[in-house]
Amino acid sequence: MTPAAASGPVADFDEETSAELVNASWADATDERSRELLSGLVSHLHAFVKETEPTHEEWERALRFLTDVGQKCDDTRQEFILLSDVLGVSMLVDAINNRKPQGATESTVLGPFHLVDSPARTLGADIALDHVGEPCVVAGTVRSIDGTPVPGALVDVWQANGDGFYDVQQPGVQPELNLRGLFTTDDEGRYWFRSVVPRHYPIPQDGPVAALLRATGRHPYRPAHIHFIGGARGHQPVTTHLFLDGSPYLDSDAVFGVKRSLVTPVREVRDAGRAAAFGVEAPFRLIEFDLVLTPDTSAS
Amino acid sequence: MTPAAASGPVADFDEETSAELVNASWADATDERSRELLSGLVSHLHAFVKETEPTHEEWERALRFLTDVGQKCDDTRQEFILLSDVLGVSMLVDAINNRKPQGATESTVLGPFHLVDSPARTLGADIALDHVGEPCVVAGTVRSIDGTPVPGALVDVWQANGDGFYDVQQPGVQPELNLRGLFTTDDEGRYWFRSVVPRHYPIPQDGPVAALLRATGRHPYRPAHIHFIGGARGHQPVTTHLFLDGSPYLDSDAVFGVKRSLVTPVREVRDAGRAAAFGVEAPFRLIEFDLVLTPDTSAS
Repeated sequence: MTPAAASGPVADFDEETSAELVNASWADATDERSRELLSGLVSHLHAFVKETEPTHEEWERALRFLTDVGQKCDDTRQEFILLSDVLGVSMLVDAINNRKPQGATESTVLGPFHLVDSPARTLGADIALDHVGEPCVVAGTVRSIDGTPVPGALVDVWQANGDGFYDVQQPGVQPELNLRGLFTTDDEGRYWFRSVVPRHYPIPQDGPVAALLRATGRHPYRPAHIHFIGGARGHQPVTTHLFLDGSPYLDSDAVFGVKRSLVTPVREVRDAGRAAAFGVEAPFRLIEFDLVLTPDTSAS
Repeated sequence: MTPAAASGPVADFDEETSAELVNASWADATDERSRELLSGLVSHLHAFVKETEPTHEEWERALRFLTDVGQKCDDTRQEFILLSDVLGVSMLVDAINNRKPQGATESTVLGPFHLVDSPARTLGADIALDHVGEPCVVAGTVRSIDGTPVPGALVDVWQANGDGFYDVQQPGVQPELNLRGLFTTDDEGRYWFRSVVPRHYPIPQDGPVAALLRATGRHPYRPAHIHFIGGARGHQPVTTHLFLDGSPYLDSDAVFGVKRSLVTPVREVRDAGRAAAFGVEAPFRLIEFDLVLTPDTSAS
């Protein structure tokens, strides 16, 4: 674009021309994808403004809110991801990027707490280093979509404790790497470990996103869940949670992460043989959750 | 919303249901307008995501960008307003809130430099305390839409100097309140003052918004202009600029502020009588800009 000494713009900026004029300004962008994303953004943003007609004060308040969201972020807090989460956008991006065949384990959001690499642990290990919560066993099989068990698959797990807090939220209170583990499935594709039943918990309450929920009558809670990333050679990894059946807020997760196929019961098991196999005493609580992976056709 | 012990959400979150499910979450908002704004935002944001299908990495990059924009803000810098400006949203909000009858002075964006109250000055005062730039006289009449001059109207003015900088951008270099003035029109609705011809200038170059423009091949410049807020009893105030005819970038203002009706020539005047009336010597440079206000029917 060259400086012009003309006596004004070709077309005046008005409610009719606004998006078109702004999108013409991307004409010199060399990256086609940037132009596509920015043009889509501008078109929808202008349509939103024309539809809702915010006053100057409302628009200033919106920009002030976004500023506050940015300023709340630091090395261990990402308030913009949280905003994306509570507006359902994180889940939508997840859905678009994880269209899976029927029968594969459905994905859900990564969430903000996979901050540290999970420590490699042996099958059967107890990941509840602080023992805060009701003891349980978590077990399952990693399978391919055709039902074949996948030996040597990686199962990365992280969760909150029985009070509803992750280790990184309580430094000095919880041991480091509490309730995190990276497991490798055995020859029959199985994994199992000991843990505690996690509690539902609120999103961080001290930021502008929580304030938005309060101002609009929304509660801040996520139903109780355990995070998983399952991965295996020749398969697409899946990032998901299991949600505990009976947890409050299953029908109103603050970040819209629940899918019915991921709701899993905690069963009481009285069989002494099974208890012994897991290294616990009967009766014990058992959560069974299989991971069904989709073959990665692009890499095969 | 009450905690539910159901076994999952009523409908699964997916690409079809996403916006509907998120917007159902505002059902308990007591403020109708908040619900309207948030529902519109969510509908358009989800439509944008479905249309452009960002990858996880692209969405993370977008949230990182917004975070950087928020973190660039401080007491004298508002990078989110700047983002709103370069996406044409500030001008669109302005257009929606300033639908004026034919003949009224058109509005444009306030901009980020009206940080301080302009000092009241007497008619004819020289507001260029640093004398950086080519001297000129700025003069005009404030009229009502029917042509009647408006005595006692307030004309608030601020501008960059001949190097393209505002006082607040060069503390310690420019005198305080340089190139700012609040004038009151005389009995015939006239205002006049001495100043310098401002230069075109770039938006702040050290932030994420300027980086976005660079990455997309857009220049950062605003054509040369002088800011005005005109106001008078019984009339709607107008926030506008005059743009200097012949300035570079009139056809590609980085913030889309130019309207053809606001482009104004700098004329050389040789008439010694007119020069004397303004307290300057002939020949002198003159910028004439009338402000035509709309009667405020709501207050009449």
